[in-house]
Amino acid sequence: MASRTRISRALARAEKAGISAALNPRPISSAFPLAARAISTTAVRQFRTSVVRNGKFTTDSYPEIKRNEKFSQLSEDHVKYFKELLGGDAAVIDAVTNEALAEDLEPFNLDWMRKYRGHCRLVLKPGSTEEVSKVLKYCNDNLLAVVPQGGNTGLVGGSVPVFDEIVINMSRMNQVHSFDDVSGVLTADAGAVLEVVDNYLAEKGYIFPLDLAAKGSCHIGGNVATNAGGLRLLRYGSLHGSVLGIEAVLPDGTIVDDLFKLRKNNTGYDIKQLFIGAEGTIGIITKLSIHCPQRSNAVNVAFFGLESYEKVQEAFREAKGQLGEILSAFELMDNNSQELVKKVTKNNFPLENAYPFYCLIETSGSNAEHDNEKLETFLEDVMGKEIVSDGVVAQDETQLKSLWGWREGISESSGAFGGVYKYDVSIPLKSLYRLVEDVKAKIEAAGLIGDTDDYPVVDVVGYGHMGDSNLHLNVCVRRYDKQVEKILEPYVFEWIKEHEGSISAEHGLGLAKKKFIGYSRSENMIGLMKQIKNLYDPNGIMNPYKYI
Amino acid sequence: MASRTRISRALARAEKAGISAALNPRPISSAFPLAARAISTTAVRQFRTSVVRNGKFTTDSYPEIKRNEKFSQLSEDHVKYFKELLGGDAAVIDAVTNEALAEDLEPFNLDWMRKYRGHCRLVLKPGSTEEVSKVLKYCNDNLLAVVPQGGNTGLVGGSVPVFDEIVINMSRMNQVHSFDDVSGVLTADAGAVLEVVDNYLAEKGYIFPLDLAAKGSCHIGGNVATNAGGLRLLRYGSLHGSVLGIEAVLPDGTIVDDLFKLRKNNTGYDIKQLFIGAEGTIGIITKLSIHCPQRSNAVNVAFFGLESYEKVQEAFREAKGQLGEILSAFELMDNNSQELVKKVTKNNFPLENAYPFYCLIETSGSNAEHDNEKLETFLEDVMGKEIVSDGVVAQDETQLKSLWGWREGISESSGAFGGVYKYDVSIPLKSLYRLVEDVKAKIEAAGLIGDTDDYPVVDVVGYGHMGDSNLHLNVCVRRYDKQVEKILEPYVFEWIKEHEGSISAEHGLGLAKKKFIGYSRSENMIGLMKQIKNLYDPNGIMNPYKYI
Repeated sequence: MASRTRISRALARAEKAGISAALNPRPISSAFPLAARAISTTAVRQFRTSVVRNGKFTTDSYPEIKRNEKFSQLSEDHVKYFKELLGGDAAVIDAVTNEALAEDLEPFNLDWMRKYRGHCRLVLKPGSTEEVSKVLKYCNDNLLAVVPQGGNTGLVGGSVPVFDEIVINMSRMNQVHSFDDVSGVLTADAGAVLEVVDNYLAEKGYIFPLDLAAKGSCHIGGNVATNAGGLRLLRYGSLHGSVLGIEAVLPDGTIVDDLFKLRKNNTGYDIKQLFIGAEGTIGIITKLSIHCPQRSNAVNVAFFGLESYEKVQEAFREAKGQLGEILSAFELMDNNSQELVKKVTKNNFPLENAYPFYCLIETSGSNAEHDNEKLETFLEDVMGKEIVSDGVVAQDETQLKSLWGWREGISESSGAFGGVYKYDVSIPLKSLYRLVEDVKAKIEAAGLIGDTDDYPVVDVVGYGHMGDSNLHLNVCVRRYDKQVEKILEPYVFEWIKEHEGSISAEHGLGLAKKKFIGYSRSENMIGLMKQIKNLYDPNGIMNPYKYI
Repeated sequence: MASRTRISRALARAEKAGISAALNPRPISSAFPLAARAISTTAVRQFRTSVVRNGKFTTDSYPEIKRNEKFSQLSEDHVKYFKELLGGDAAVIDAVTNEALAEDLEPFNLDWMRKYRGHCRLVLKPGSTEEVSKVLKYCNDNLLAVVPQGGNTGLVGGSVPVFDEIVINMSRMNQVHSFDDVSGVLTADAGAVLEVVDNYLAEKGYIFPLDLAAKGSCHIGGNVATNAGGLRLLRYGSLHGSVLGIEAVLPDGTIVDDLFKLRKNNTGYDIKQLFIGAEGTIGIITKLSIHCPQRSNAVNVAFFGLESYEKVQEAFREAKGQLGEILSAFELMDNNSQELVKKVTKNNFPLENAYPFYCLIETSGSNAEHDNEKLETFLEDVMGKEIVSDGVVAQDETQLKSLWGWREGISESSGAFGGVYKYDVSIPLKSLYRLVEDVKAKIEAAGLIGDTDDYPVVDVVGYGHMGDSNLHLNVCVRRYDKQVEKILEPYVFEWIKEHEGSISAEHGLGLAKKKFIGYSRSENMIGLMKQIKNLYDPNGIMNPYKYI
């Protein structure tokens, strides 16, 4: 009976906080029209208006990186070739021969965080695989360096140039080519926007097996090129499993025509896998086919408070066991992260009291009644066993989004005080949260954290995809500070190495992590990777100065 | 009401056939002890007793394949090196210096179907990764060709030698190294037997994300090296998604130390993927880590009769939609395949009448009551809509196995009349069964099929993993016959190419499919594959005469 009482208390509290705890899941709306081209253009425009034109150049932030002088300087002849090849103005933005267009290049030179800014003078937007092939072959033959670019939503500076590399932007290749509504296999261009594709699939009762915050702008080709992880990995696995086929172009113009559309094909080396997570360093993905799961009719979200990280681990174990096949997210947030969101958003927190840790659990299933029952039983159990101290369940789509807001708002709130040092790492679950404690202790010991402007650090917060052993560590600061940086690096990377984790769980290497790869990979592995790079891109024209 | 009546009729009929249709799923037993070494040895012994010593040599069946004379002949000095390196008798079986041991080599020279038989004179069983590294480096330096061998259960002749290649058998490396019962990540040696590992996982409430008929003998390293598909792919996806880390040894002795144990790691090219499905042609997998799902508490199996292949497709669509996250198998069997099993096994068929097609559906979930309800609702729906004509549901483990027997018995029954031509292909679902009809029509038109000994062909049957678009086509014969072969090849491969399928869905290339890869892969892709082979194995010592 104890558990019943607890649940009732939780319900009452939730109502008070404006979140009904009654279990009443909603069907996910599936009435979005397909409008790839329109949305893509809008996304670019929105981006353009947000650009701060005088962002710091990457060459100023990283003065140790020198332009590789073997690469040619762009000439009028080069531009002429590309204009003849690609046709009209829509496909070529050229400030090489027309200085007045320099401003139009900014959205392609600057990343969305405004941390990385290149000196590119030419953007090409090919409209077909054959055009990509001819562009790359010409660049390779003429030693012109290039940067493949999707939605430019990456977090490690991988999708913008450093010097004068040509940007090959994929936004014009944005069509869905086929969808098999029995097998769930979709084939589409690399430049299709994730949200547009997911909306298209929603109409068919399917879902893209990947979801992330940047979905309104990011391209599915970019998702595959960076092996994006995101929110659905716990349920639908990695892109290495769900991508069935890839069409890509190598620097020498060779088309890797491996656009297979079925789930089983054991005829030789699975070369397409090398392009998943290669961050545009060995070729450009032009099309892909992917296995999409059925869209769930019912989605529930619950939000809990817990007394310790040990209890979080217990709750995760119970959720896996009891919610099993319907568990679609298990997110972790520490109290500091929630205090930040409260401070910044001024929203009403869903729970009455504060707890050291919070979890957000999402279930997705085919039968609302069954899912409710499973979730209710789970809640009774974990509250009865005092694993979870308090909790609420969303009653409608608005509440569902509101609860997700407490998780998704952390990233933005972290940066609200001036700046943020961000780490995206994976760590074995048992030690996952200890990194946050250890980093905070070191910063405290150095006297760098406090409530007034005398201290550079506001707070150290931890959150992430518990279900994937993926922690996001944010050190929120009032100003970027060398003392803080000296404490953080290489300490964080050494800590990760000691705990057999990964220094980049889902964000990739790009420019930001290039020099730290040795903390996650052995000399042997780095040697084998360089061999692959040299095999496919012997001239090194693809996305130079980054990755390995 | 119609559907209720139909279900009742189905129930009554099922009881008559000895199969209760009451929905009463059972927990999967999880009380198996871990005994890797014992079972592995037993498997080898069982295999040994079944060997027919005078099987035909591969060199006789394929006289066009010539020994590559660049490979050295084994000498006493070579054997001396290996004996000193690996120690006692358990690790080296040597008929080079001791002719009396030739007989002991047979189980390593002959594949389990007795179709491929090599001339190997030396078997090495390394006990550690370091030993594998030293063996391969020595072989590479001395141009000694090798065949990596797991449980030797493949279907394409990939795991036995053709000429005098040294067999490197992995059976001594068979330990589970770690298991994380919160994340479900297992790390084990490549030579661990699949069933032993799965039994170990069952004790922990987990399941290996792969299941296949050979599980009592096959090694998990061999499963990964051949990218085995099997029965759980529909639910748990491919090994490219679930394998998290691999330790492997390259021909030059380099250890690929990529044994990562977490789900997310975006730090460079995912080189381990190349070893998944490489069939031992670029290196030897020594250890692997893999993400294992929770074991389901409840498993149900239903068996249906359907009037047409169109209805089979409708049933599959409905099953995906209604059973969603609990659907774990959707298997197809045509009537001819079931007539064969009836004839060979003399078992009582579960349905009263015969239908052109049958499906076996398995569900696996965390809540028996919910799963029963979903399955019952589904049954009512598909019978009410006359998609399914008749069906039964297993009531206990015995009945569940008995129903699976009608699916799993096809392979053995197909060969009971003398021989069988087998094709393992994937085809888009809408055309999947047409291959069986087209092949049968051609054989009929040639007058090669009939009920008496005058005709070589007994029957043409189709079955397979509908959920993965994977068809098995068996042409059952009284004797192997050149006329039949001329009709089948290259016709079957041309048909597959035209329908954009794969000539090897899950069995791989090995020796059997090497020359047909062009029907599933372009010249570009084959060129890229040869580049990978040359990169890692420039001397070509790894599993020669096979793959590409």
